[in-house]
Amino acid sequence: MQRSFIREILEAISPQTLSLAGGLPDESLFPLQALSHCAQKVLSQPHSLQYSISQGLPVLREKIAQHYSELGFPTNVDEILITTGAQQALDLLSKALASSGLIVESPAYLGAIGAFKSNQIPLVEIEMEEDGIELESLRAKLPKHRLAYLMSDFQNPTSRRYSLSKRQEIARLIESSEAILIEDGAYNELYFKERFPSISSLIPHRSFHVGTFSKILSPSLRVGFIRASKENLAKILPYKESMDLHTSGITQGIVNAFWEEYDFKAHKEKIRHAYALKAKALAQALQTHCPSFSFKEPEGGMFIYGSFAKGVDARALAFDSLKQGAVFVPGGEFYLQRRQSPEARLNFTHLDPRSLDLGVQIIAQTLRAQTKQ
Amino acid sequence: MQRSFIREILEAISPQTLSLAGGLPDESLFPLQALSHCAQKVLSQPHSLQYSISQGLPVLREKIAQHYSELGFPTNVDEILITTGAQQALDLLSKALASSGLIVESPAYLGAIGAFKSNQIPLVEIEMEEDGIELESLRAKLPKHRLAYLMSDFQNPTSRRYSLSKRQEIARLIESSEAILIEDGAYNELYFKERFPSISSLIPHRSFHVGTFSKILSPSLRVGFIRASKENLAKILPYKESMDLHTSGITQGIVNAFWEEYDFKAHKEKIRHAYALKAKALAQALQTHCPSFSFKEPEGGMFIYGSFAKGVDARALAFDSLKQGAVFVPGGEFYLQRRQSPEARLNFTHLDPRSLDLGVQIIAQTLRAQTKQ
Repeated sequence: MQRSFIREILEAISPQTLSLAGGLPDESLFPLQALSHCAQKVLSQPHSLQYSISQGLPVLREKIAQHYSELGFPTNVDEILITTGAQQALDLLSKALASSGLIVESPAYLGAIGAFKSNQIPLVEIEMEEDGIELESLRAKLPKHRLAYLMSDFQNPTSRRYSLSKRQEIARLIESSEAILIEDGAYNELYFKERFPSISSLIPHRSFHVGTFSKILSPSLRVGFIRASKENLAKILPYKESMDLHTSGITQGIVNAFWEEYDFKAHKEKIRHAYALKAKALAQALQTHCPSFSFKEPEGGMFIYGSFAKGVDARALAFDSLKQGAVFVPGGEFYLQRRQSPEARLNFTHLDPRSLDLGVQIIAQTLRAQTKQ
Repeated sequence: MQRSFIREILEAISPQTLSLAGGLPDESLFPLQALSHCAQKVLSQPHSLQYSISQGLPVLREKIAQHYSELGFPTNVDEILITTGAQQALDLLSKALASSGLIVESPAYLGAIGAFKSNQIPLVEIEMEEDGIELESLRAKLPKHRLAYLMSDFQNPTSRRYSLSKRQEIARLIESSEAILIEDGAYNELYFKERFPSISSLIPHRSFHVGTFSKILSPSLRVGFIRASKENLAKILPYKESMDLHTSGITQGIVNAFWEEYDFKAHKEKIRHAYALKAKALAQALQTHCPSFSFKEPEGGMFIYGSFAKGVDARALAFDSLKQGAVFVPGGEFYLQRRQSPEARLNFTHLDPRSLDLGVQIIAQTLRAQTKQ
């Protein structure tokens, strides 16, 4: 198996590199003191350190279920399974539902592709449009493949959001073809203006909805979750057990204590506000220093996705920029068959606005130097 | 996939049940205050909450490598991979090394069997003898299957330890057949008198040695590790990445801080001493209340394994005892084909000596009631 460009680059870049490559949250937004207090609370109870049940801490599952219900997606504690990050949820689902083939977006999230490939699932690509996956191909391919992996909110890498009408149409297609939807909601809390209902909420018995605390609390917790009918969860639970017995009770406990003792809603508001400003800053930097880069301002998430002028090899540009001290991920990496492409994904959450501007300047200079050759 | 008896029972028993079933550490030995202090230290640094590298925190890998080296098994930081508990190590190894078949002990650790089955690896059983797996069968089957999973120290479920001569002979067999050894050292720190060298240390380039902090610090951390040559680790690392990106940086940081700031050797000594006393207490209770149960006193680990009189169905006894308030795991559960058997595995680490005695009394009474029928 090949390693992903992103993981390789995360390990290769120096602390001085201005990285617009990863999908790292802003470290200044981690609620350090609160989490430290929560850890003390958890670690005052011996049973927190003991083995616990594979489905996850009931108190935390309760809260996640309540959160879904408040969003108009009625859910109870038996319909939640805690996973070791959303990444494990994807590994688990592909392993347990191993099928004749799984439909993925093109381009798609590399971590998901990695999980599916490591389970040797045959993958079928369908093109991403501005408002979500292309419907005609989905209609044609669903009956045969029966399993589709979609990221409806601020898709990684394109940052696009599925339109309401496309969500409804996809729900109808899934239902009528008796297929199963794996909906990745990793970024669904990071909307800048309004929230859209998940596709899963329209087809609760034919869907697995994946969520995580990585983007809104801390990725280091490795706490994610799956929402599905009790019957569907029963199919995947034995696999979770064989993967790591259960997710860390300490980090689950920390999330639970944070939710009990602090204002999680206000915390999420704060992150959304900060990220909206950072998205603006990156957009501004791109328009100023690199006007040939075409993109649409995102409505949420962590990335700006767009394209340099036709003919630019974004992969070569990324490596050359890295030597100059700034890096991003070339869009060609996000296709099943890696390709030469002028597309690029730039992260705006990790750096401060000044560094974002500086990073874009370096990339733009490198591009100009390449063009002159 | 079927769920394991142990996980089912862990979820089914009431807080009042005297459970000799699980493999739970003694909660009174968890160093709560120390770990709380460590968590505060970790959570004072923003980067502890960020995504980190898939192979694991270098500072922790350094310490684990040093520990192997001190045991006479020279190891460097590149030869350690951190996993989400030893369970993930087994899932990872079976997934990445998926072979024409994997040799397992009979009876064997249920969690390993679960991981191998979930990856659809064909399994080949070889009988466990008093001093380790039966050699003639191993010699015959290794060339074809090339992958063997062995637990050389205080094997779960039998509590047996491989003799020194058998370790050497197995190392020779592995080497000459160009096979690969997966050695599970989950219990290797829990020796009551002396420590034996691992089989892996005799064949460092043909082995993956699995360890964990679950038995000597806290299972809730979900921090385990694999020791292998850099070349062999390179084969499995991309799979680790696709399984959960990386193990929680918070719980890895807690283990690292504990190792830095406290006397880990003294802590392990304390656990070994306490468990040796508990093993004695359970052995005493069995000899007193249930003399028909034959067993050998273990030299380490967490279990006493033995056999009721011929004809006793230990599974029926376990379920009947559960109704009376005490439970253990019937030995028949640990075979690839679950069988009716008079064997039983009894845990001595979780309960205090008085409760161990009471639990055995209940089991003995239930046995007598069954025999009378």
